[in-house]
Amino acid sequence: MTEFRRDPIIGQWVLVKTEQSLTPDDYPKEKRYLRQGAICPFCPEREHLTPPEVGAIRQNGSEPNSQGWDVRVVSNKFPALKIEGHIDHRMQGIFELANGIGAHEVLIETTDHKKQMADYSDHEMGHVFRMYQMRLNDLTGDDRFKYIVMFKNYGESAGASIEHAHSQIIALPMIPKYVLEELEGTVKYYQNYKRCVYCDVMKQEMESKEHVVCENEHFLVICPYVSRYSFECWLLPKNHNSRFSQLPEDQLASLAGLFRDVLKRLKNCLSDPSFNYYLHLRPINITKDDPDHLQEKSVEESYHWHIEIVPQIHKLSGFEWGSGYFVVQTSPHLAAKYLRDTSL
Amino acid sequence: MTEFRRDPIIGQWVLVKTEQSLTPDDYPKEKRYLRQGAICPFCPEREHLTPPEVGAIRQNGSEPNSQGWDVRVVSNKFPALKIEGHIDHRMQGIFELANGIGAHEVLIETTDHKKQMADYSDHEMGHVFRMYQMRLNDLTGDDRFKYIVMFKNYGESAGASIEHAHSQIIALPMIPKYVLEELEGTVKYYQNYKRCVYCDVMKQEMESKEHVVCENEHFLVICPYVSRYSFECWLLPKNHNSRFSQLPEDQLASLAGLFRDVLKRLKNCLSDPSFNYYLHLRPINITKDDPDHLQEKSVEESYHWHIEIVPQIHKLSGFEWGSGYFVVQTSPHLAAKYLRDTSL
Repeated sequence: MTEFRRDPIIGQWVLVKTEQSLTPDDYPKEKRYLRQGAICPFCPEREHLTPPEVGAIRQNGSEPNSQGWDVRVVSNKFPALKIEGHIDHRMQGIFELANGIGAHEVLIETTDHKKQMADYSDHEMGHVFRMYQMRLNDLTGDDRFKYIVMFKNYGESAGASIEHAHSQIIALPMIPKYVLEELEGTVKYYQNYKRCVYCDVMKQEMESKEHVVCENEHFLVICPYVSRYSFECWLLPKNHNSRFSQLPEDQLASLAGLFRDVLKRLKNCLSDPSFNYYLHLRPINITKDDPDHLQEKSVEESYHWHIEIVPQIHKLSGFEWGSGYFVVQTSPHLAAKYLRDTSL
Repeated sequence: MTEFRRDPIIGQWVLVKTEQSLTPDDYPKEKRYLRQGAICPFCPEREHLTPPEVGAIRQNGSEPNSQGWDVRVVSNKFPALKIEGHIDHRMQGIFELANGIGAHEVLIETTDHKKQMADYSDHEMGHVFRMYQMRLNDLTGDDRFKYIVMFKNYGESAGASIEHAHSQIIALPMIPKYVLEELEGTVKYYQNYKRCVYCDVMKQEMESKEHVVCENEHFLVICPYVSRYSFECWLLPKNHNSRFSQLPEDQLASLAGLFRDVLKRLKNCLSDPSFNYYLHLRPINITKDDPDHLQEKSVEESYHWHIEIVPQIHKLSGFEWGSGYFVVQTSPHLAAKYLRDTSL
């Protein structure tokens, strides 16, 4: 038996298997292996093999582009976007195009080549989120940029190619369509109910507890009732909050602790699956004459930043590609229970 | 160097690598192997192992559910949707849901267990499209259904699990979000220009020929200027046509011939890649009080059915999942040239 469920934010339908849901053991397992012999440009003493640092958390007195870092951010050596130049929109017949201006950075998360994110200490995980926040605030200073995407690919099925733990940061001159749709949905909901839709979703989930994976004072992790992927997890601040950029230090530490917790659960429950995560943040540099008609105040009151984590354990089919109806093989309340019951 | 390009229909931006595009050899190759020993329920003499036929093209005098078929359609033994019952929409707190009513059928395309679609004769390929059309017209008779998705998963990376060549047909009680967006885009374009946007795209492509892979009297195959996937191909009728359901027999044969041509090119050029394709068709059973505000006349004049073929040669990353900005590693004009130059 399956059930159609509709996302209250962007209005997308998904199809959830409510009977005979797949268990963690039913998903294929991916092999992990360390490449031998190759010289890793992200390891300490190889700082000269990467482009220059644009940011780092370093031990006292150590120089940029030398050893002594805990995390460092460098420009991507093979960037999807070029940092220099002005954005130039133009038409080619009926098609609109623009040159590929933007920033593409790599955050090297640890000095330890073999350590993976699920095994970080809370302190190490804290550094990653501190660095996300620093880069977000720095890149926001460049008013050519309208949106910052921060994400991680872990494992082959998630599109990772370098094994040394890292995440990526991309600054874009246009707001992605998905983000605009999400914003439109939250603004519309706020206009109708004078409440944030994410706050309402959390209120409902906190009452039943059925979809809750883990929580602490400031943050909550759920397998959303309208998931698109099996074992999809969302981490959200419990109180309404549209600005990750201004999260105070104590909450950054709290976020890091809970994020480490859910990654460890996913690793233990699903045998170290490939996964992607991405921060869903508000657009930056909203101006009065914004081409997407965004208003600062309305984004502030209706948008709720969060992190979406998607294990890549299930191949999409032509049905999903062709219709956008995602089929969820494990009912989210069962996925949440498997993850809650996983030993850490 | 990369370039942002915007789709003129749904307004999505993609990022195309216009320099240092990947060549066919740069993509990882997938191994194909035939499973040994397992009993295939789709082979002749095993008709009793599938649910009863709902349609078939058979040799004279042969009985349903016996041998003598060329192609046959059966209900999926493990359906994503249940055919019996009425659709029941309801709310659970802030979430909208509905029971999983619909049809889920399997089209067994050939009696030959080892034959794959790219190697069909034109006659065999014709049977597949004849059968799609028959099922579409039959399922349209059930007014609970608003949309029919017809698609194929070939190879492991495309989500295929059974190797005997088959495609799938799913009838849905709601129109998918992607289809509605596409329709809204085409209707808006028509209102502005009094022309079909697909006709305009084809006009532009027929002039430059740069993105054309192959063509015949009635149909055209292009690698779209705004592709989302490397080596993505679209097959479209050259003249404005919103109804695949009424395509006459001579054009079905012409379609089958060109479709076989492009599949063979993809196979030879990319070393037998996994792929998905899906037919993009207009919604069915549009009523006067349609909840999506569709109007028969406006769909007729603005929508142009087509087939999208997507080789699964490149893993999506957190950037794509998180932003919807697809990164295309091979520039579409080069992909088209590689495919044109492939020997058949």
